[in-house]
Parts: sequence; structure tokens; C-alpha cells
Amino acid sequence: MHTIKITDRFFTNYRNLVRDKMIPYQYKVLNDEIAVNIERERNDNSIPNEKSHCLENFRIAAGLKKGEHYGWQFQDSDVYKWLEAVSYSLMEKPDDNLKAIADSVVDLIELAQEDDGYISTYFQLKSPDRKFKDLSWSHELYCAGHLMEAAVAYYEATGSEKVLAVARKNADCICRYFGTGKGQTRGIDGHEEVEIGLMRLYHLTGDKNYLRTAEYFLDERGRNPDIFIEQSAKEHGGKPDLSGILSFPKTYFQIHKPVIEQDTAEGHAVRMMYLATAMADVAYTAGNKKLYQACRKIWRNVVDRRMYITGGVGSTVIGESFTFDYDLPNDTMYCETCASVALMFFARNMLLNEAHGEYADVMERALYNTVLDGMALDGRHFFYVNPLEVTPEGSAKDPGKSHVKPVRPEWLGCACCPPNLARLLASLDRYAFHEKDDTVFADLFMSAYAEFNGLTVEEKTEYPWQGTVTFKLKTTTARKDAQSDCGARVFAVRIPGWTAAGGEAVKITLNDKPLVVDDSICGKTAMLKDGYLYLTGPFEDDVLKLEFVMPVIKMRAHSAVRANNGKIAVMRGPLVYALESIDNGVGLNRLFLRDDTDFTWQFKSDLLNGVGIIKGKGYRIPDTTNTARSEYPSEDSQAPLYAPYSPDAETKAECVELTWIPYFAWANRGINEMSVWIRQK
Amino acid sequence: MHTIKITDRFFTNYRNLVRDKMIPYQYKVLNDEIAVNIERERNDNSIPNEKSHCLENFRIAAGLKKGEHYGWQFQDSDVYKWLEAVSYSLMEKPDDNLKAIADSVVDLIELAQEDDGYISTYFQLKSPDRKFKDLSWSHELYCAGHLMEAAVAYYEATGSEKVLAVARKNADCICRYFGTGKGQTRGIDGHEEVEIGLMRLYHLTGDKNYLRTAEYFLDERGRNPDIFIEQSAKEHGGKPDLSGILSFPKTYFQIHKPVIEQDTAEGHAVRMMYLATAMADVAYTAGNKKLYQACRKIWRNVVDRRMYITGGVGSTVIGESFTFDYDLPNDTMYCETCASVALMFFARNMLLNEAHGEYADVMERALYNTVLDGMALDGRHFFYVNPLEVTPEGSAKDPGKSHVKPVRPEWLGCACCPPNLARLLASLDRYAFHEKDDTVFADLFMSAYAEFNGLTVEEKTEYPWQGTVTFKLKTTTARKDAQSDCGARVFAVRIPGWTAAGGEAVKITLNDKPLVVDDSICGKTAMLKDGYLYLTGPFEDDVLKLEFVMPVIKMRAHSAVRANNGKIAVMRGPLVYALESIDNGVGLNRLFLRDDTDFTWQFKSDLLNGVGIIKGKGYRIPDTTNTARSEYPSEDSQAPLYAPYSPDAETKAECVELTWIPYFAWANRGINEMSVWIRQK
Repeated sequence: MHTIKITDRFFTNYRNLVRDKMIPYQYKVLNDEIAVNIERERNDNSIPNEKSHCLENFRIAAGLKKGEHYGWQFQDSDVYKWLEAVSYSLMEKPDDNLKAIADSVVDLIELAQEDDGYISTYFQLKSPDRKFKDLSWSHELYCAGHLMEAAVAYYEATGSEKVLAVARKNADCICRYFGTGKGQTRGIDGHEEVEIGLMRLYHLTGDKNYLRTAEYFLDERGRNPDIFIEQSAKEHGGKPDLSGILSFPKTYFQIHKPVIEQDTAEGHAVRMMYLATAMADVAYTAGNKKLYQACRKIWRNVVDRRMYITGGVGSTVIGESFTFDYDLPNDTMYCETCASVALMFFARNMLLNEAHGEYADVMERALYNTVLDGMALDGRHFFYVNPLEVTPEGSAKDPGKSHVKPVRPEWLGCACCPPNLARLLASLDRYAFHEKDDTVFADLFMSAYAEFNGLTVEEKTEYPWQGTVTFKLKTTTARKDAQSDCGARVFAVRIPGWTAAGGEAVKITLNDKPLVVDDSICGKTAMLKDGYLYLTGPFEDDVLKLEFVMPVIKMRAHSAVRANNGKIAVMRGPLVYALESIDNGVGLNRLFLRDDTDFTWQFKSDLLNGVGIIKGKGYRIPDTTNTARSEYPSEDSQAPLYAPYSPDAETKAECVELTWIPYFAWANRGINEMSVWIRQK
Repeated sequence: MHTIKITDRFFTNYRNLVRDKMIPYQYKVLNDEIAVNIERERNDNSIPNEKSHCLENFRIAAGLKKGEHYGWQFQDSDVYKWLEAVSYSLMEKPDDNLKAIADSVVDLIELAQEDDGYISTYFQLKSPDRKFKDLSWSHELYCAGHLMEAAVAYYEATGSEKVLAVARKNADCICRYFGTGKGQTRGIDGHEEVEIGLMRLYHLTGDKNYLRTAEYFLDERGRNPDIFIEQSAKEHGGKPDLSGILSFPKTYFQIHKPVIEQDTAEGHAVRMMYLATAMADVAYTAGNKKLYQACRKIWRNVVDRRMYITGGVGSTVIGESFTFDYDLPNDTMYCETCASVALMFFARNMLLNEAHGEYADVMERALYNTVLDGMALDGRHFFYVNPLEVTPEGSAKDPGKSHVKPVRPEWLGCACCPPNLARLLASLDRYAFHEKDDTVFADLFMSAYAEFNGLTVEEKTEYPWQGTVTFKLKTTTARKDAQSDCGARVFAVRIPGWTAAGGEAVKITLNDKPLVVDDSICGKTAMLKDGYLYLTGPFEDDVLKLEFVMPVIKMRAHSAVRANNGKIAVMRGPLVYALESIDNGVGLNRLFLRDDTDFTWQFKSDLLNGVGIIKGKGYRIPDTTNTARSEYPSEDSQAPLYAPYSPDAETKAECVELTWIPYFAWANRGINEMSVWIRQK
């Protein structure tokens, strides 16, 4: 066990927002205490969305109230994810009032649970005869997985056994029901998550049943691509109901082939990332090398071919899905907040398998860009969809972009993202460091004080605004270990992929003396491997200082990315920057850069809660919309839609000073045009 | 009356295809004689599409057969449009066999018609109690309009009164039923077309009832934006059924405001263009200047802001609709063949109001590009959607592009486009010339022999491949007319907008002597006005020769067109050219041009039935997809998705010779990538 206390200025803002605003606000939403302006993500009248009704569903299932279930099949999960976020918040800062509320929610959950451990207020109230009989869309196991995650977190935060007992009883019910054994039913959930929950229960309790059932669900998936159609046929007198979710392709559920054979990221992006998260956990925990290789293939496919520069995934709104290699449209994509949260889960579990800096690089990319973008600076408005290019007119008038909002709505009819964000930010310490064998890895950079078994780390940084990070290291228990030369604790720190790894873009000192990698200094052995700098202890208040040079960099996409041919995006450190029309005028598409851009960066404490902004020279093609053209009657005068190209048209472009803000901070100043990519001449 | 005989080499190919292949083929489809591979344009299982059943519906309605109606509400219109195409074909070349078949179809239609003139096999067979009660989607008046158009054409072609009587009886039924008079019902069709049909009946018969009812339908439209919702409410016990077509915005039907106040092109593109066509006809016929001004506004909006370079219209598949100004995506658009056919209708009627070359320019643009693109060179495969950029992978794997086909399907579940194309091509003479007052206008260029009242015109050209057009003019009846100085017939010929109008890009001679405009030569007065060259007779075998210089031109779009910023398209004369990967390699997005392109053009008689092709220097960015990158394990080696931009990345691009083919001829050599727009550095 370890203790990590995040003291970071940048993240404390966010974590306080989660604790002080988001968690209480979400509770009120879940409890129908406040009317919120709920935004439907689709033009679908069938979606219930006037209220959350989440806790009310539990009260009714518990017999405390009369009434009907209201909401989605997965409505319960909003409560579980909230409870998980509460847990992390309580770990960080105990709060008796909050704990009392959470305990009351736990009581409700316990009361709602059936004697055999089953719990899903939707099925208990709406169709008790159809439990586990509509797995493609029932989300029963999905909700169970979230209950398990919440229970483990709440137990770890408070020591409370009650919700853990509920979750175990539910898990036991599932482990009994599903499997290949005698009397068991073969089945999987249409939305992966239970595998993650079972693994967390296993890690806490050591109960192998949970590991085995998680392995079973992974192994079962894709063995029979018709599994859901067959279940539907069985439940509908032989004729499957193909009108709803089953009209989606099998890739939507990742059931097109056995998991171990899947080598591309397919279908619904959140489902795919949850699946990969569970695969990587089981691979590591069970030492399943073949499974890890499958994870690697999926990882490479995502990272090399299907991920936005912001760490967003999911190229189409239809099925909220992956599409195909290099298909990364900027203005019609999905890039759901949840999907990037899940990409972080996946990356973290990959790190456990293998300490490769790229995993943490992607975790960092998703966190600082898409994940943070999911929440407004007020902590009360949320994006479901995180676009890379938006025009308010397109969102309003092109029905193909109606899912792309130019501002964050207050709440969402399908409210998966806000609580996912909350639990992620509240548990950031889980992503800052990880331990493996005798090594403590610093994966993400944030000021923190951390005690591990054998090592304390005091980290100080103004990341992501500044590239300097210092670690004060102290060995508290010397351990014998064959793998480290000195038989002492090892500390490893990531050299971010956005630097020229190990080159002059990073200056490293140990106790103020330049550190020569692959050499020994002050008696410490230093080694660079796979994007991590390893330093072998023992440490006695040694100060490791890394100075990552953080220039503003123009990035290009792979030439196969059609949407970005001839364009660049601006990054500094881990942050992707964006142009908003509030700073740069309407018509961002008229802007372009030449090779003469000299960027400057400065921190503006009075802007957007304090952000670093970039300025640089660009060019704007004049707006000729209302220019007269002589050959037509004057009342109709406007520039022609098509005209002969002239090489000097763009040399007439006016020179303008452009302002970029961090992508995550866009859409906090009203309805506005935004673009990450800009044309480069 | 006039006689126009098209002898043109370019179009005769197409017109022969229509006559010899398409018309017989379509008859067999309508008569269910051949099995066709019908392509659904949507992933909608509710659409019936296994067979046409068109004529069978009529046989059942006529009582000749037992059975049920099969197909769309508008299935009848396929027969009417076929009959209209047959009519034009018979005018061009009498054919007793074809006429006999058409007569048998006419007999069927007559038999199917009810005593009061009503005809719609769908409602007659499926829900006779709901006639005219579901106007938003019933297409009863839409079908009636097509019946009227077909009847007028068939009468003009054959002198047969029978179908004309059927159409008049149907029109009389409609004129009695709809209107603001006592006992009449207020209503309009959800899909404009009856207005066009009524006007054609009026032009033939002079019956003012038809004009008045057409005016009524236009005037009624948009007065009550809730007209369809109110009808639905009335028919559904007070609660409108908003689940189907009524979930679409009011702009879809152009009912958001009175027609006369509409100043932008909105909603379903075919509906919008049919409406505008009728408006322009009524404006001209009734001398309604206000209505013409409304047409002008819509025209300007389409032409200046909402039209593709190919003359395609309709920027989104959702509602097959217009979206907003300058929103012209190349790869997700709709650009339905029917919509461009209808744009030609609209343009032609605008020309009648005012002889302005721009109207004919747009007619030409739509014809040579999107309309011709609608049909394969074999005359048996058809595009519904005419994209400007296609990748086969995108069409297959991005559900947002599933409507964009990389090859033309054999037939379409909603079979509106093929017969629309057939009737347009078969009646091309209606677009080549028009007459107004004492002037004969040559609007489109094609070899033809035409006799007008007072003037014969013999036109010779190899357009669109060559820019030389000669007209041999002969006055046959000298007419007194106050408007022309010489009291003789005037001949006007369009100077295409794609030339530098009247400048040195056109060489004009009259009887081999240079023609000086605004001057008198050989006793003929020449004048240039609004894109037309006017020459005043009398003529005695005078030869007017126009030589339009036809260079290959790079075109750019207005800077507000986001999709085309930094790109150019290649045109020569009226033809838009396109790149196909079969000629230029896969990955057209990797290509770009610099300012050093020197184009060459040549006619290739052995390619694609004979087309002119363009060659020119371009550059290709290397495909780095499988390039190793050193910092990652070798088994995963591929180029990174995002990397720092380097100014010389594109200077390393290889120089390649690119080949453009005419846009209309693409997708005739198998599944293939295509792009009209290419990046210009």
C-alpha cells in the first residue's frame, strides 16, 4: 500500500471543482433535487430525459416508495460512478457530511438488492421475468461492474464493509449464473465493464472466482458472433428482434471474433476501450502473454491509426464508433469524454504489463486534452462529444453535426460522462505513479507527496505550464532485490514522448550535478529505457531535477489522415492548443500559417482560470462574401462561388497575430467557433 | 411551334443510350420482367425494394389482376416519368413498337383512374378512405403532376388524346378539390410537382383553371407552417403523428414561410428545386414580377452560396437537404441526380423570364457534370448521389458515408433518378434553344438543325471537347417587330460564363469576317448583353462562328467554403474534371499541385467511350504508413500518427504526372477512389 497526496496547483483546481461543485451537484441531479437543462445527444424522442430519477429508482426497488422505473437500462450506473468519485474524494479529504450522504446511498443500494444478489432497478421494476435475457442491451452486468468498482473504492476510502458485501453478493450471483460449467448460462454483456469490476474485486479480495469469471467473459466474447441474435431469437419465439441495437454491426459489441484475435479497435469506442482495459488487467494479473499481445495490437491500432491528437477516439456519431484506419474527421467525429477516460484506463493497465513511456504519453495526451475538455471551468457543464473543429452554424444547421455542441450542456440525457470524469479526476493519484516489483514509476507529472513501501517521493512542478519537475527521493526501507545492482529501491521517471527523448531537449540533474545516463553519479546508477529514466537507490533526500524544454511545436498528422492534409496543429508540452473565433475573428478556415511563424507563449493568470496562451503570426484570406462583381446586377453583388485560381490570391492575405488557447479550455466564453488544425502553406 | 433535331455527336451517344437501352430496360424493370440488383439508398429495412411492381399496381387498380399494392406512395411516378421519356424519344425517332407499348401503358392508366378523375394506385389499393388526407407524405399530387407532364409530352409526340384526357380529368379533380373557394379543401402536397404539371397543361390547353390552381398551390405554401401537423392531428384524433416525415423541420417541405418571402434554398433539394421551377414558370406566365423577384433571391442563394462546382445541390444526406451558406462538404453531401435535373428546369424557366447568360451557364454546369454523372456509360447503372470525393473504404466503413457509392448501382429502391435523367436527356432540345418575342436564343451548344417560326438555324460543334460553334442562319419569314431595328428576326447566342465574357477568349466571325460587337457588319447589328450576343436579321445563310478558347483552368472556391480552402478543381470549358486512383494511384489526398502545373489536354477516343483527358504536373507526399520508426519495437514499426511538422516534408514530395478525366465519366472502371478538389500549395 501507498499514500499519495496530490498538492498540484493545476489539478487541485480541478479536483476541488469535482469535490466542491461536481459531486454535490451530481447528487442533486441524481436525487432530482434540481431541474437541469438536460441535453439529448440525439434527435431521438424515445430517450427519457426530463429527470435523472436514479435514486428514486433505488427507493422504489427497495420498497421505500411506490412508483415506476424511469430512465435507461443503465441508469443505476450513474449512482455507482458517483459513489466511486465520492470515495476518491473522501480519500483525499475526509468529509463527514458527504460520507453520511454516501452511506445513505449505500443503504439504499443494499435495500434494493435481491436476496440472490441480483440488482438492476430497471429489470427489477420493469420486467423481472427478463433478467439476464436481453444481454445485448440490458446493461445489467455493466451496472454490476460499476457497483463493484464503487464498492472497492468506497471500502478503500472508508473501510465500510457494507457496500463491499453488496458488490460481492452481486458478483457471486453473476459468477454462479454465467460460465461454461454445469447449470451455468453462457453469456456476455453488450457493454463491457463487469470484467473491470470483477478484477478490482479480485485485486482487493484475492477471491479467484472473480478472476476466473472475468477471464470467462473475455474468453467467451466473440466465440459466437451470433450470441445476441440467438438470445433474442430465443426470447422472441424464434425470430430475433433486429430493429434496435441488434441492427448494429457485430463490431459494435466487439463480438465479431474472439477477443484474443482482435487486432483493430472496432465498434463503440467506450465499449472497445473498456474491453481493452479489462484485457490488459487480466493479461497482467494472470500473466497471460497471448492476451497481452492482443492488447498490444489493439493499442498500436488505436495509437498509430485511430486516435485524435487530443487523445479522443471514436470517429463517427453513428454507433459512437471507431471507423477505419486514419479516418479522423475533425468536425463530425464523436470523441466521447468517456472513451478518453477509458483510454486512460487502458493505458494505465498497459503500463502495469510493461513500463513503456508511450503508454503514459497517451494517458497524458487523453487527460490534458479530451478528458479535461469534458468539463467546463465552472465544473457544471459537460461535453459528451469533444470536437476538433466546430462552427456554431454547422452544429445548428447541419443535421449531421447536431451531436457536436459549440458549448457544454448542463447535463446529458445519457449521463455517463460527467460521473466518469469525476471519478477519474478524483483518483488522479492512480495515474500519477505506479509500482512494479522494486520500482516506483512517475508516469504523469504533478506536485505530490507520496509514500511507497520503501521510498518517499516529493514531487514539485508547474506542469503543464512549465517543463521543470523535481523529485526529492528518500529510501525508507532498503530492500534486497536481484534486479537492481545496489539491492535498493529503484525510481523511474518518464521522459515524455513530446520531448526529443533523452536528447538536449531535456536537462537532467541529480543534486545539481548533470546526470549522465547509463553512467553512475553520486553512487546512483542511471539508465534510460523505453521512455523511462531509471535511478537506483538508496536515496537520501536526493533531488532529481528534470527540465523539459517546452517549445511551441507545429505538429502534422500522418499523410493518410485526409482531414489534416496540409494542416498543422499547435502543441506545447502535453497540451494541444486551439484557435477560437473570440480571439481570432469569425472564419477560422480563412486563416493559414507560413513557415515564418515565430511563436510566443505566456501565462495569463486572468484568463480562463489561468492558462498559458500562444501567439504567432498567421495570415487571413479576406472575406469576399459581400464583394461586388461587375458582371452581375448590383443588387445581387457578391463574390462568385467559383472563380479562376490565381497564385497571388493568398499573397494578398493580410498578416494577423493569432492567439491559441489550450484546447481543454475552449468553449468557456460563449458560443464560438473553434479549430485545432489550421492550414499550413 | 418549332422543330429541333439534335444531330450532336456527344449527346447522340447519350440519347441513343436512353432510347435504345434505358427506356426498354426501365420498362422491363417497371414490368418486373427482369431481376435487378436494387440498391437501397439507406439502411432502412422498412423500404420495399425487391421489385418495382409499378405496372402491376396499375393492373390491380384497374381490376385486371388481383393483388396488393407494393412500393412507395410515389411508385406511380416512375411509370409517368418513363412515359414522358418515351414521348421525347418518339418525337426524335418514331418507333411503332415502342408506341404500342406506351399505348398499352396509357390504356392501363386510364383503366386505373377512378370516375371522378382521382388516381393513385397506392391509396386506391391500400387506403381508399385516406385520399388527400396525408398530404405531407402521400405524393398524390406529386404523382398527378408527373402524369400531367407525361400526358402533355405524349400528346405532343403522338397526338394521342387519351392520356391527355386522363391527365385533364385528374387535374380537374384536383382543381375542384383544392382551393380557398366554397366547399374546397385547403392543402398542398409535401413534395412539389403538381404545380409544374398544371402549368404544362395550361401551356398546352390554355385552360385558366390550371394556371389558377398552380398559383393557388404556390400561394398556399408556407402560409400556415403547421398545415401538415394540423392535418395529421385531424386524422389521428387530435394528436399528430410526429414520428415519421413530420419529425423533419418545416424547411424540409418549404412551408416555413410564404413562398414569396422565401429567399434562401431550404430543405429537401429536389422539393426546393421543383418549387422554384414552378415559381419561375408562373412568374413568367402570369407576369408576376414579385414572384420573379422571389425566384431571383432563391437563385442567387443557390448559385452564389449553395451549389457545388458540378452543379450538384443538397449538402446533407439527412433529409437530402440544403444546409446553410457555403456548407459544401465534398464527401458526405447528397447532390442527388434529380436535384440537378430540377436545377436545370429552374434555370430554363428563369431564362424565359429574363435572358441572362448565367441561367444557361448553370444549366450547362448541371447538365455536363452532375446530370450526366447520374448514368453510367453503359446506360444501365445509376447514381442517386453524386459525390465530389469518394474513397471506397469510407463508403464501406463510415456509416455516415454509406449513401455515397463508389460505383453506380443497377437500380434504386427509390427509383426517381433514372427516369428523371431519361426524360431530361430525351428532351434536350428544350434546353438547347428558347424563343421569346422575336428572338431565338441558343442557350446550350450542340449540333442541331432547328426550324423556328421565321428562322432556321443549323448549328455545328464538337462541344464540349472543342470550343468552336458555327450557326448557319436563314430568315424564312420576315416579321415586322418594333423592337428590332431592321424589323427582322433576332438570333442570340450565349457567351459562356467560363470564358472571359466578350474578351479575347472568344473569337467571333460573321461570314468569316471578324464581328465587332455593338457595331454593324454585313448589315447585321450585333450587341452584347447579359451574356448573350444578339444578331439582328434578316439572315441569308449567314454563318456565325464563335471560337471559345478552352484552356484548362484551375478553379478555386469562395474562401467561405471550408471544404475547399487551399484546394483547386480543374475545369475545361463546361466540364469539371476529376482524379481517379486508377490513373493516379491510391491516396489521392496525398497529391498536391504547385503553381508550376502546365496542363495538356487531349481527346482519347479509346477511353470511356471517347473523352478528353487532362495531364499535368503534380506532387505526391510519400506514403509513410509502413515506415519504421526507431524508438519503438520493430514489430510495431509504422510512421507515427502525429509528428513535428517540418517545412521540407512536402519538398520531398515526388513529382508525378497526373491524369484528370471528365467528372461525369468517373466510376466507369470499377471501384475506385475519386476527387474533384486537390490541394494547391
